[in-house]
Amino acid sequence: MPDKPPRVCIVGCGAIGSLYAAHLARVAEVWAFVRRAAHAEALNREGLQVTGSHGFSVRLRADTRPQQLPQFDLGIVATKATQTEAAFAPVGHLFDRGAVISAQNGLGGEEILARLTRGYVIRATTFMSGTRHSDTHVQYELDTATWMGPYEDTQTPFEVVRQAADLIVRSGLKAEALEDARPAQWSKLIFNAAVNAVSALTELPHSPHFADEKQFDSLGHLLHDLIDEAKSVAKAAGVELHEDPWEMNCIGAQTNHPPSMLADIRNRVSTEVGFLAGAIARQAKLLGVEAPLHTALYRMIKGKEASWNR
Amino acid sequence: MPDKPPRVCIVGCGAIGSLYAAHLARVAEVWAFVRRAAHAEALNREGLQVTGSHGFSVRLRADTRPQQLPQFDLGIVATKATQTEAAFAPVGHLFDRGAVISAQNGLGGEEILARLTRGYVIRATTFMSGTRHSDTHVQYELDTATWMGPYEDTQTPFEVVRQAADLIVRSGLKAEALEDARPAQWSKLIFNAAVNAVSALTELPHSPHFADEKQFDSLGHLLHDLIDEAKSVAKAAGVELHEDPWEMNCIGAQTNHPPSMLADIRNRVSTEVGFLAGAIARQAKLLGVEAPLHTALYRMIKGKEASWNR
Repeated sequence: MPDKPPRVCIVGCGAIGSLYAAHLARVAEVWAFVRRAAHAEALNREGLQVTGSHGFSVRLRADTRPQQLPQFDLGIVATKATQTEAAFAPVGHLFDRGAVISAQNGLGGEEILARLTRGYVIRATTFMSGTRHSDTHVQYELDTATWMGPYEDTQTPFEVVRQAADLIVRSGLKAEALEDARPAQWSKLIFNAAVNAVSALTELPHSPHFADEKQFDSLGHLLHDLIDEAKSVAKAAGVELHEDPWEMNCIGAQTNHPPSMLADIRNRVSTEVGFLAGAIARQAKLLGVEAPLHTALYRMIKGKEASWNR
Repeated sequence: MPDKPPRVCIVGCGAIGSLYAAHLARVAEVWAFVRRAAHAEALNREGLQVTGSHGFSVRLRADTRPQQLPQFDLGIVATKATQTEAAFAPVGHLFDRGAVISAQNGLGGEEILARLTRGYVIRATTFMSGTRHSDTHVQYELDTATWMGPYEDTQTPFEVVRQAADLIVRSGLKAEALEDARPAQWSKLIFNAAVNAVSALTELPHSPHFADEKQFDSLGHLLHDLIDEAKSVAKAAGVELHEDPWEMNCIGAQTNHPPSMLADIRNRVSTEVGFLAGAIARQAKLLGVEAPLHTALYRMIKGKEASWNR
């Protein structure tokens, strides 16, 4: 007789959360914890359809009410970084005997999860991408890995990370368990912090301007300076990078992709800047190194958010 | 028999140009050189009406055609800094035996004028303000001085500056001739560069946020850092400041005034950033000192301008 399948909860079903939920529902008992009642009803009624790089449909359970949820073996928190606290506080106790993956942008999500559960926290960085067409339909785009490692403060055993990565791999997604996931997380953090902040303030998508260093006033110089500044913060934090963020920037600059923070600026919703440029600025301050550019961009984006409430 | 009144040309009749034109028309033969034919026709037909701090109406001549203009004793260039070259190039020779006042924002206008005329160039900074209600009606607001001094490269005699200042004073405006106008110009430059750039990028008017230094992410820290950085550039340039730009910022932050660059951003027209933050960045580079914040803001505002042409 086979083992009972693990019970998994996806907290937040945007594009990334929906991709995890749909894939994992093929190998686990998946619950989606979402904010809107209509979203939960649609998932319960129709399940989730995946198109694009993968194509299939699954059934899963969804709810907006924490008291209706069971205890879980594994959680994946995939809300916007700004919503981590509000989304996870009501359900943190349901993972006290399991593990929770922080699959969000930037730095600082793990700390919040660790405050709200007694379970093991797993530091993760995902490079996969998708487009959410509706509450029940997500298109899978970049079929790339989630890199995962133990979060230090909860003393998460590597074996717990390995099991979670195995489950994700069995579900059809790419994942890799690493003894130390910080090099991957910081590579993406540094790339994301610079690109999102400059895009939010200039309202340019991630376009060739970001890699252009021809003239004194070319924007590529600023991206380069930001990335160099953040690398020195990573170094002060004892993190060696997994990939070169400047190369990631040069590749991305050919896509004309609108970064998520540009969408937030256009929709006038709170940005993730506190987990990106702001996280680098605060880390620098903590470590006693300089990060004047990230600090300046952080303050201007907070100023921009303040302009909406005038 | 009295002397013939001096012949004066105002180049550009926005709010500031209109204020100079109207006041000077009471003591001089004033011509307005403007871009739009309808503007010139309205001025020729109706003259100029001043309301607000002063109240009167005058007649003056206006034209869009350089070949219709005579030789002048004095010019005042009051276009946007970005339009100096285009506006002054066709008429520069008309001032070859006179003097021209650069009454524009920022740094760099004098160099452009000096390239385009053989006349004496006068460095000026004005603190007066007004609102232009129509082509023929301007409201005078802050009744404050124009500070004027010789521009070094044209070896303008101080006596020429004094005579120009006297004429402006006789016209009913405040003006002061200074042996060195750079301390006044740089004080306003530093204030203007910081406030305009931060306003353009955050889309906040000059509001209490700009003086707020309570939290780590408060915007006032950035204004303070920008002003300190620009002060060190002024020092490297051998300029002692006339007023403290941080105090100017704290006073202005109570007004909720939208700086001109915010209006430019909203109207999607080229900003004066090259004469403000950009001028400080370039001066710093020339002098071999650091100005990373001004350089960053300059590049982002150029990026923002580029976003309109995508």
